[in-house]
Amino acid sequence: MTAEIICVGTELLLGQIVNTDAQYLGRKLSAMGIDMYHQTVVGDNEARLLAALDEAFHRSDVIILTGGLGPTSDDITKETVAKYLGLSLHMHEGSLKRMRRRFQHMAQPMVKANLKQAMIPGGARVLDNDKGTAPGCILEEKGKTFIILPGPPFEMEDMFDKRVAPYLAGRTGEEIVSRVLRIYGIGESALEEELEDLIEGQTNPTIAPYAGTGEVTLRLTAKAGTAEEANALLDPLEARIRDRLEDRVYAMGEETLDKLAARLLMEENVTFALAESCTGGLLASKLVDNPGISQVFLEGLVTYSNESKVKRLHVSPETLDYNGAVSAKCAEEMAEGLLETSGAELALSVTGVAGPGGGVDAKPVGLVFIGMAQKGEETKVHQLYLTGDRRRVQNGAMLHAFDWVRRRILGLPEDRNC
Amino acid sequence: MTAEIICVGTELLLGQIVNTDAQYLGRKLSAMGIDMYHQTVVGDNEARLLAALDEAFHRSDVIILTGGLGPTSDDITKETVAKYLGLSLHMHEGSLKRMRRRFQHMAQPMVKANLKQAMIPGGARVLDNDKGTAPGCILEEKGKTFIILPGPPFEMEDMFDKRVAPYLAGRTGEEIVSRVLRIYGIGESALEEELEDLIEGQTNPTIAPYAGTGEVTLRLTAKAGTAEEANALLDPLEARIRDRLEDRVYAMGEETLDKLAARLLMEENVTFALAESCTGGLLASKLVDNPGISQVFLEGLVTYSNESKVKRLHVSPETLDYNGAVSAKCAEEMAEGLLETSGAELALSVTGVAGPGGGVDAKPVGLVFIGMAQKGEETKVHQLYLTGDRRRVQNGAMLHAFDWVRRRILGLPEDRNC
Repeated sequence: MTAEIICVGTELLLGQIVNTDAQYLGRKLSAMGIDMYHQTVVGDNEARLLAALDEAFHRSDVIILTGGLGPTSDDITKETVAKYLGLSLHMHEGSLKRMRRRFQHMAQPMVKANLKQAMIPGGARVLDNDKGTAPGCILEEKGKTFIILPGPPFEMEDMFDKRVAPYLAGRTGEEIVSRVLRIYGIGESALEEELEDLIEGQTNPTIAPYAGTGEVTLRLTAKAGTAEEANALLDPLEARIRDRLEDRVYAMGEETLDKLAARLLMEENVTFALAESCTGGLLASKLVDNPGISQVFLEGLVTYSNESKVKRLHVSPETLDYNGAVSAKCAEEMAEGLLETSGAELALSVTGVAGPGGGVDAKPVGLVFIGMAQKGEETKVHQLYLTGDRRRVQNGAMLHAFDWVRRRILGLPEDRNC
Repeated sequence: MTAEIICVGTELLLGQIVNTDAQYLGRKLSAMGIDMYHQTVVGDNEARLLAALDEAFHRSDVIILTGGLGPTSDDITKETVAKYLGLSLHMHEGSLKRMRRRFQHMAQPMVKANLKQAMIPGGARVLDNDKGTAPGCILEEKGKTFIILPGPPFEMEDMFDKRVAPYLAGRTGEEIVSRVLRIYGIGESALEEELEDLIEGQTNPTIAPYAGTGEVTLRLTAKAGTAEEANALLDPLEARIRDRLEDRVYAMGEETLDKLAARLLMEENVTFALAESCTGGLLASKLVDNPGISQVFLEGLVTYSNESKVKRLHVSPETLDYNGAVSAKCAEEMAEGLLETSGAELALSVTGVAGPGGGVDAKPVGLVFIGMAQKGEETKVHQLYLTGDRRRVQNGAMLHAFDWVRRRILGLPEDRNC
């Protein structure tokens, strides 16, 4: 089965937004073992969309379209697919009801233009949209399948995962099982070297490394007649990789380091507080994205000014004068002051130079100190030299901090990556 | 002149990387007034690339290819374009020299595979690569122009800006001027209705609305013989739009609401503090991304627990008991307590139900209270009903808060959007 993607939207051609929909679908389809050889972007233009549909029709089995389901006259995807297939549109009462409820809930008026979003080509299977107004749909016509999805990524991804992936899985005969190992504390090249003999000549299962910002994932994928057989192929491979990488493998699947740290804090019921300077609330904002974290996460302080460090965390003015705000001593006092003033059992501090400005020879951009204080334990400080732009430095500090929380709670060695 | 983009790379189809090259080129070409109606992605496959070239050849004047210039046998872009045009490749001595110097400089051995990167189709104009090994090239053949660029974004962008943009500018006679108006406080559909008569039948200048999460932009674009003439077309249109939208137009260009609020705080030297609950540090993290903000941003507190609200902000336990943490009274006390304890001149608080859990009938997901306290001013609270998932609710609260800061500092009406 071959699929292709047509993304509809003049804003994509103009470069106003980056096409993450195509990436998301590419990753999902490849994980499902569905071949995709073409991606096309066309603007909100009927003639060009018709031409793109015709090309796709003649070379692929499944044509996935994203975008152009909005309420304005520019939004023409459903209309154009219907025209291409000689179908008419009709009002889908279920979608209309959902939309009315949605607007009611938002206490916003539903304007006339929204009605067109509930119009569906005849014979289509409707895909409910749990994250927005426009429903999607699947059309099986003339031996081909057209899948029409909304453009906004959070709507499209939710609809794909809940409604399209199960539909497509029902159509491929093979079972594809993937496992994602999440790794922190080793770069992509070093990882590839360490696993070279396993990666080389791989066919089934396959090993695909992927480097995000600061962490690396390995996707292990096996194809077989049944999921059991595929898993039997994956088990020994996973064991060998874990054996080599040891505690640098921190999770399997979708659990990122921040989520893992949050889960461990909750499971072990460790009350926690944060004092951030150069990360400016990034760690706190990641933590509070975890439902239930309010049980253990007492507070996060973005003590950006020296005054705030002194007043809120009792950092001594002498430390700020002599060692500076970016220093091991300051990180230590921040963590200890936070432990005392917050009442948390575990307190973590971050101070550093995230850039782009503010770096000097002795304290270059990328220098970050992380402090950890815990009741009954000695306070420790890690010193990091991170690389990249502001965003990467902040992200690197965050990953290190959450990995340290993981190591602390699980009793693993704590000084590995600094 | 019409252009189109063909991005070559199986890693794009598999979703291993997001296609920022297409976005970058889209933005640059549209700013130059070059129409682009198609973007295509194909894998490292000769037959499919030949087919894509043939389609592009028949519908566009300029065909820009990115990717597939690497040293491996998968990298086939130059070879395939040459084959399509019936040209042969030859070794380009200048590029070979550059490449040798580059490897020497990196103290790395140049392997035989790299030689192929210096092979160029006959008759091509070579584009030096200042950021990597593979040169690009421009081919003018059969009345069409083929521009071949490397795939890695930092190489491609550098080569485009330095060498391709001047080449293309020399070929278009027209000046294109764009202005982006940034708008908050009105949805995309309502905006289009309000401007319907202006948008309808637009040709030059054109008006293109685009909705991000919670804010809307309008791009006004005019073409003319000179930039002056284009600006003369834009001036009256912009004036009419501003007249209708009044203070909902908050900026022009790239300045988002958070950056605007940060700039105003700095310009007016208003010391500022934040107390966040449901936004969990989002506002603080946006603020600290502005260089120089440390002058005025004293601190941000993520007072997630009730204990922290009481201890850090002096919220009364009675308020938490009787009104709850999500209440106008709590937002008011948070802002006032923050004003007092932080020493800032302006203090802003956010408390609400961001979801997905935590909503009840009386306090549904999306209910957010924002409090603002200022020295010598009456403390005010805005109550919002926001929609969407957690991310959108947090983002909506942030936009409202920063818009409120803007309105406070500029002396505009403050109760418009709640």
